[in-house]
Amino acid sequence: MTATSGALSTIRLAEIIGELGGELHGDADRCVARIASLDNAGPADLSFVAQARLRPLLERSAAGVLVVREDLREAALARGAAVIVTPDPYLYYARLTRWFAARWRPVAAAGVHCSAVIGRGVELHPSAHVGAQAVIEDGARIAAGAVIGPQCLVGADAVVGEGTRLIARVHFGAGCVIGARGTLQPGAVVGSDGFGFAPHQGRWEKIEQLGSVVIGDDVDIGANTCIDRGALDDTVLADGVKLDNLIQIAHNVRIGAHTAMAGCVGVAGSARIGAHCTFGGAAMVLGHLEIVDHVHVSAGSFVMSSLTKPGQYSGVFPIDDNASWEKNAATLRQLHTLRSRLRALEKKIEP
Amino acid sequence: MTATSGALSTIRLAEIIGELGGELHGDADRCVARIASLDNAGPADLSFVAQARLRPLLERSAAGVLVVREDLREAALARGAAVIVTPDPYLYYARLTRWFAARWRPVAAAGVHCSAVIGRGVELHPSAHVGAQAVIEDGARIAAGAVIGPQCLVGADAVVGEGTRLIARVHFGAGCVIGARGTLQPGAVVGSDGFGFAPHQGRWEKIEQLGSVVIGDDVDIGANTCIDRGALDDTVLADGVKLDNLIQIAHNVRIGAHTAMAGCVGVAGSARIGAHCTFGGAAMVLGHLEIVDHVHVSAGSFVMSSLTKPGQYSGVFPIDDNASWEKNAATLRQLHTLRSRLRALEKKIEP
Amino acid sequence: MTATSGALSTIRLAEIIGELGGELHGDADRCVARIASLDNAGPADLSFVAQARLRPLLERSAAGVLVVREDLREAALARGAAVIVTPDPYLYYARLTRWFAARWRPVAAAGVHCSAVIGRGVELHPSAHVGAQAVIEDGARIAAGAVIGPQCLVGADAVVGEGTRLIARVHFGAGCVIGARGTLQPGAVVGSDGFGFAPHQGRWEKIEQLGSVVIGDDVDIGANTCIDRGALDDTVLADGVKLDNLIQIAHNVRIGAHTAMAGCVGVAGSARIGAHCTFGGAAMVLGHLEIVDHVHVSAGSFVMSSLTKPGQYSGVFPIDDNASWEKNAATLRQLHTLRSRLRALEKKIEP
Repeated sequence: MTATSGALSTIRLAEIIGELGGELHGDADRCVARIASLDNAGPADLSFVAQARLRPLLERSAAGVLVVREDLREAALARGAAVIVTPDPYLYYARLTRWFAARWRPVAAAGVHCSAVIGRGVELHPSAHVGAQAVIEDGARIAAGAVIGPQCLVGADAVVGEGTRLIARVHFGAGCVIGARGTLQPGAVVGSDGFGFAPHQGRWEKIEQLGSVVIGDDVDIGANTCIDRGALDDTVLADGVKLDNLIQIAHNVRIGAHTAMAGCVGVAGSARIGAHCTFGGAAMVLGHLEIVDHVHVSAGSFVMSSLTKPGQYSGVFPIDDNASWEKNAATLRQLHTLRSRLRALEKKIEP
Repeated sequence: MTATSGALSTIRLAEIIGELGGELHGDADRCVARIASLDNAGPADLSFVAQARLRPLLERSAAGVLVVREDLREAALARGAAVIVTPDPYLYYARLTRWFAARWRPVAAAGVHCSAVIGRGVELHPSAHVGAQAVIEDGARIAAGAVIGPQCLVGADAVVGEGTRLIARVHFGAGCVIGARGTLQPGAVVGSDGFGFAPHQGRWEKIEQLGSVVIGDDVDIGANTCIDRGALDDTVLADGVKLDNLIQIAHNVRIGAHTAMAGCVGVAGSARIGAHCTFGGAAMVLGHLEIVDHVHVSAGSFVMSSLTKPGQYSGVFPIDDNASWEKNAATLRQLHTLRSRLRALEKKIEP
Repeated sequence: MTATSGALSTIRLAEIIGELGGELHGDADRCVARIASLDNAGPADLSFVAQARLRPLLERSAAGVLVVREDLREAALARGAAVIVTPDPYLYYARLTRWFAARWRPVAAAGVHCSAVIGRGVELHPSAHVGAQAVIEDGARIAAGAVIGPQCLVGADAVVGEGTRLIARVHFGAGCVIGARGTLQPGAVVGSDGFGFAPHQGRWEKIEQLGSVVIGDDVDIGANTCIDRGALDDTVLADGVKLDNLIQIAHNVRIGAHTAMAGCVGVAGSARIGAHCTFGGAAMVLGHLEIVDHVHVSAGSFVMSSLTKPGQYSGVFPIDDNASWEKNAATLRQLHTLRSRLRALEKKIEP
């Protein structure tokens, strides 16, 4: 762990309670140095228990301060730790990390690094930051408090909303729009061309992609994730969408509010995905499908037809030792025949 | 949608017909402002119908101009739209987008941006463009009309053909070669090291990758797609190959002419893929296989052995509600046993 | 093939034997110009045979020099080639490529390119190289012989070990640490934020990622591969780990020494993977699992539970012609029912 990792310098519990609430059992003047996982926390550290099933870990933990739900209060106090009781310790932890990061993370100073290249007619709010080697093309608009990190590119006429941060080396293409408070991780590409070709005499004729990408507020986009511009209409990510790393969002896709996708997910062209959905890692969605709100697709599952009812969907070949898999996979290729044989037997026995 | 999205300013139908042909039914002086999808087109917009099954959409469309096949002419005229009849409306649309983009897209001016870094012995055609923060290493050759966009790198002794465009932040490694009229999207990497190691006493000894990447004419490469250099021979993409985003092409792979791959496809080392093949999204190909011409692999399918006959191939676990999947997946692990039990029954009944 | 591809200029066999050992049968003054594959090697080239099953290729090869095991010595001599006998020709080949690359590859000169941006308090060893458009942020430490290639970024307080090479356009985030002799391919991202959010009233609240990435010695990381920083603890790659292109390593993952992963693999958060494991392309690992040492996961397989025993594991839907697949996939969705029907029959027959 790096020296700074999780380090809170030293903060009094009273200060934490004052900021984030919770019911304190213990000395308000006690200090904590770090947020740490249950395994690694020592007497100077604060940790949390989000699930009752982690009780055994709690009972072994050396954490000096524990954030728990009411039902684990006594177990935590029995450890000799100071205890903060709150209805949702995981949320408490999330907010604590943000409060901490706001204190600790060096603020990107307003202004433009001398190595950045700024085009003509750029509207750059005086409080925005433009880092080393960044390129802002003609006519782009960068709102108050936005951070265009080192080696990023903001294309011509693109719009970056208030407080949105392009961490580093983000490509945010011409004409694309993102709202407020977004975060784009390194290597993300927004506004690459959609994959559109018309077949003609054995060759592919390119369809120029004339749409754009329109992204709402509070959207996070992971490292090396790609979001293609629309063919004619736009590709649209609604407010609160969260995308992990190495995700492919093809042209014309629409993703509803607060839908989250884990790493390596792919969504093919023109799929329409509802709000409040979740997609496990490497889940795939075919093109032109509709998925309603509150659908949850398990990791590794392939959505081949529209999903019209909320619920959890799965479709993964179960892993096995290689010899067993080989036998079962071979049999799988005769499955239809096996069914016919079973039917034939049934007819013989119960004609 | 951005203000410019799909906007044709205003163009007379006569001009379109003059450029692209087609049989016009309606006023040649009528003007169109945009190309738009059937759903979104208004009276000032041009739209198209590529498939007969979209007739219901056509019948609801408010498009002022419709590009259709002969069989939909009457239905289109009944909408009160001006109609262009052509044998392949999708191709017509593709060409219209290109004609439009040629008019609308700002042309990259010849010359080198002052922030670019140009090595020694670079042959740079006077009509080529080198954008902001680009790096051209020693001995590279950039042909007439080529565009090296912002933040791209062209490695030592690499060759970029006539009119080929590296849109932005493309890494085109040392010694790699691409022909004419190619397009590389942001974040693409051509010429990374192939993944080659010799195992030795529990460790991996690196095999230096001495080959290169050789790419033909009219090849498109998507955002964040990677193409490794060959170990000894070269990795080769023939003319007209189209690769979408986040694709992995390993060392020594050869891909035949006009083969297209959708996003998230992976091809392992030394696979040889024929011409005129298509690969759906996230399809995977094992190493050292041969796939003949005109093979079509469905999205999400895993090619584990050579495919010696043209045709459509598939292999995806069907998605289901989670409870059903769990039951079926559990049973799948006993499939071989089920077959044996079925056989035993069959023997009993028909000995 | 490019002119330089595999070219050794011209080297006497005596020199090779002197450097790498092996038992020479033939003229020590014979010269070789290239290392080449068995198929492509000509009389001036050296090739090797790593597996007995390649004997037919050997018998057709025109290679002037052949590196073989004892058992193929006579077959190789019968070709009229000079022969080097060694117990492990593949390892010999690996070492030959490295010896060759050390001679041929232009050495990155010590010093800082004038277009690079160097922060405050950077410790940069005089023998290190910093390329064009690179950015080294405040407090970073770059050890002797390290190469920070063009367009790379080394974040604040990050540490790059002795002789480690960031080839080009690598993002190596703030506070991350890598040991000696590593290689990072273009587009790799180390230290992006882990994907952590607490759900709250239908929205996602970001969990700031306070950990780092700590990487051992002799680690290779492929093009556009992403390694997230830990949430509280660090993401850890032990010595000798080899990662191919487009791999996703989520936060808090730990990968043991000398484990290798092929392209497109994904590992979800907090998974712990042992030493000396291998993962085929596009294999996926769910979060919070444990995989012991010496586990081998086949390409395309999805690890859904901890693997507590060494061995080879697989789980891929077998590919088939599309019509057969459709039938079998449809039947698969009734598999559980088929088993029940089989049981019912069995009971009838053997009550």
